[in-house]
Amino acid sequence: MTPGPTEIPEQIREAMARPIANPDVDPAFVDTYRSLTADLASVYETAKDVVVLGGEGVLGLEAAVASVIEPGDRVLCVANGLYGEYFAEFVELHGGEPITCSFPWDEPIDPDAVSEAIDEAKQEGEDVAAATFVHCETPTGTMNDLDEALEHCREAGVLTIVDAVSSLGGAPVPVGEIDLCIGASQKCFSAPPGLTTVAVSDAAWERITGTDTRGFYTDLGLWRDVGETGEFPYTHLASNCYGLAEAVSIVLDEGLENGFSRHEAAAGQCRDLGTEIGLASYPAEARSAPTVTAFEVEEATVVQERLHQEHDILVGTGLADLEDDLIRIGHMGYNADTERVETTMDALESVLDDR
Amino acid sequence: MTPGPTEIPEQIREAMARPIANPDVDPAFVDTYRSLTADLASVYETAKDVVVLGGEGVLGLEAAVASVIEPGDRVLCVANGLYGEYFAEFVELHGGEPITCSFPWDEPIDPDAVSEAIDEAKQEGEDVAAATFVHCETPTGTMNDLDEALEHCREAGVLTIVDAVSSLGGAPVPVGEIDLCIGASQKCFSAPPGLTTVAVSDAAWERITGTDTRGFYTDLGLWRDVGETGEFPYTHLASNCYGLAEAVSIVLDEGLENGFSRHEAAAGQCRDLGTEIGLASYPAEARSAPTVTAFEVEEATVVQERLHQEHDILVGTGLADLEDDLIRIGHMGYNADTERVETTMDALESVLDDR
Repeated sequence: MTPGPTEIPEQIREAMARPIANPDVDPAFVDTYRSLTADLASVYETAKDVVVLGGEGVLGLEAAVASVIEPGDRVLCVANGLYGEYFAEFVELHGGEPITCSFPWDEPIDPDAVSEAIDEAKQEGEDVAAATFVHCETPTGTMNDLDEALEHCREAGVLTIVDAVSSLGGAPVPVGEIDLCIGASQKCFSAPPGLTTVAVSDAAWERITGTDTRGFYTDLGLWRDVGETGEFPYTHLASNCYGLAEAVSIVLDEGLENGFSRHEAAAGQCRDLGTEIGLASYPAEARSAPTVTAFEVEEATVVQERLHQEHDILVGTGLADLEDDLIRIGHMGYNADTERVETTMDALESVLDDR
Repeated sequence: MTPGPTEIPEQIREAMARPIANPDVDPAFVDTYRSLTADLASVYETAKDVVVLGGEGVLGLEAAVASVIEPGDRVLCVANGLYGEYFAEFVELHGGEPITCSFPWDEPIDPDAVSEAIDEAKQEGEDVAAATFVHCETPTGTMNDLDEALEHCREAGVLTIVDAVSSLGGAPVPVGEIDLCIGASQKCFSAPPGLTTVAVSDAAWERITGTDTRGFYTDLGLWRDVGETGEFPYTHLASNCYGLAEAVSIVLDEGLENGFSRHEAAAGQCRDLGTEIGLASYPAEARSAPTVTAFEVEEATVVQERLHQEHDILVGTGLADLEDDLIRIGHMGYNADTERVETTMDALESVLDDR
C-alpha cells in the first residue's frame, strides 16, 4: 500500500512472463507497441501522440526537459513539493536556467503568481522556454489544480511540462492544456516499474525537432516516428511493454470514469478512517490526492516498520524533511480498493494504539 | 536465433512474473540487488564494483561516456564496426571531442595504431580522457582481441570503456584491463531487455566522482553507493532484476568455462554448417565471435523474412550498409545450442536452395 509501485495483479505479472517477440526485428512487437500507445492515448484522453520509453518515470521527466531546452533557456519551475523542485535540477543539468516559482509544500499553487513570473521574465526581455508542473505531488499526497496556471502558460505561449506520474489513470489529468504529460507504469497502472509514457503535443514535437539535445537516452525526438517506422532507438523492453499493455487494457475495460470513482472512494475511505482515529491529513482535504493520502504521524519511520513487520503491510513515509512526520497510504491502481484501505487503516490504528 | 534478445527460458520468464518487493522501501529488494551485483561480479570475474541500471544496454554505453567526460575532453574512439562508431556520437553529444581511430569493418583493430593515436594526441599537448572499444561487434559478428590495445591505454594512463554487451557471459572478457565494462540483460544472459550492467574500476569511480555529469539518468555517479545505502536514484526495475538474477544464477550454475565451451561449440557448428552449404563468414574465421555468426548472403532481408514465415525462425540481417548483405545467426545464452544451430542452418539451407 505504498504510493507506487503498487501490488501487481496476477494478470499483469503473467503478461511479464510471456515469450517475447524480438523488438528489433519482429513486426509482431511493432503491433504491440502501436496498440499500447493507442490505448494509452485513450487513458490520456487525447488525440496527441503518446510514446513509451524504456526506463523508470524519472526518465520521462528528464527527457521532457532535456528534449525542449537548449543551454541558456529559461524554464519556469512551479513547485509546491519535492518533484516540483527536482524539475529545476533537471533544467540546470541540461544547461537551462530555472526560474523557480515555489510555494510551501502544504499550500496550493497560485496561478496568478505563475502568470506574474512569466510576465516579469518577459518584461526583462527573457523568453520563457517552458514551464514545469507536478499534478500529484506523491511525497505529500497533494493534488494540484493546474487548470488556470496552464491556461496562463498557453496564453503566454509557454510550453508546458507536467508530471502526472502518480495521477494518470487514477484521476482526470488536464492533458488538453499540456504539451508534455508524463506517466509511469508502476503507479495507477499497477504494472512493474520500467516504462515511462509521454503524451506530446504538436507544438512540443516542433520544439523538440528544432532543439539540439545533449543526450541520447533522454532524447524524445528519437521517438517521434517509431510508431510509423517500427524502428526503435534501442531494443525496447518487450516484457515490460506486455505488462503495461495488459495493465492499460484493465484500466480501459473498467472504464476511466469508473476507475476515477473507485480511486475517489478509496481516498475518501482512507481520509474518513484517518479522521476517526484522530489523524490529520497533511494537505487540506480539498487538495488531498485521490491516489495517495498523507497523514501527519510522529515517528513515522518506526510506525512504517512496525506495520511491515507486524501486519505485513508496507506503506510510505514522508520524504526529505518530512521523512519522520508523514505516513503515506497509496490507494492507486489495483490498491485503490476500500477493503484494502480498511485493512491498512485497521492495522495502522492498532500500531498507533500500541505505543 | 537473432543476436539478442534471445529466446528466454521459462525459468527466467517465471521470475519476471513474481510479486515484487517495493524497491524504494522494502529491504528485501536491496538484498536482491546486492546478491545480483555480487553474482554479476562473478560473471565479470572481477572484484570491481558492478552496478545495474534500469534501461537497455545503450544506456550503459552512454552512461559510461557521459559520466567520465567534461566538455572539451578528448576521447579516443576505436572502431571497426557500427557500435564502435556510435561511441564517437555519444562523446560528441556529451560535449567531448572524439579522436576516431577507425578500421574497415572486416579488419582487426591494430593496437599499434591505438598507441600511436594516443602518442600523437599527447605530443600535441592534448590529454586523452578515455578510450572506447567494442569487444564483440554484434552487427558483423566480429570478436575483437583487445588485450594489447588495452595494455597500451593502461600504460598511457588512459581510462578504458568497453562495450561487452554481446560477449559478457558467453566468452572471456578482459575485464582486468577495463575501467568501465558494459553488459546487458538480453544477450548471453537470455533475460528480457531492460537492464544494463557496468563493472567499474576504482580509477573510473575516482574520475566519475570528479566529473560534472550533464544528466541524471545517465549519471553513473549516483550508483556508486547504492549497494551500501540501499537507496536507488529512482524506483528500480524490480521484475527485470528478478529475471536477470535468475539468468545470472543459471550462468553461474553451469560454470563460466562450461558456458564458454558451449558457445564455442555452437559457433563452430554454425561456421562448419555454413561452409558446407557454401556460405562465407564475413569476418575472418579467427575473429568470428562465439556468440554470433555473420554470413555473406545476397538479398539477406528476403532470406530473413522467408526463414521467419516458412520456418518460424527469426535471425538477424546486417545493419547499415550491410543490411542486405549479411545473415546473422545468434547463438548466445539459451540459444548457444548445437541442435538449435543445426535446425536454423537446415532451414537456411532450404531457403537458399529454393531461390
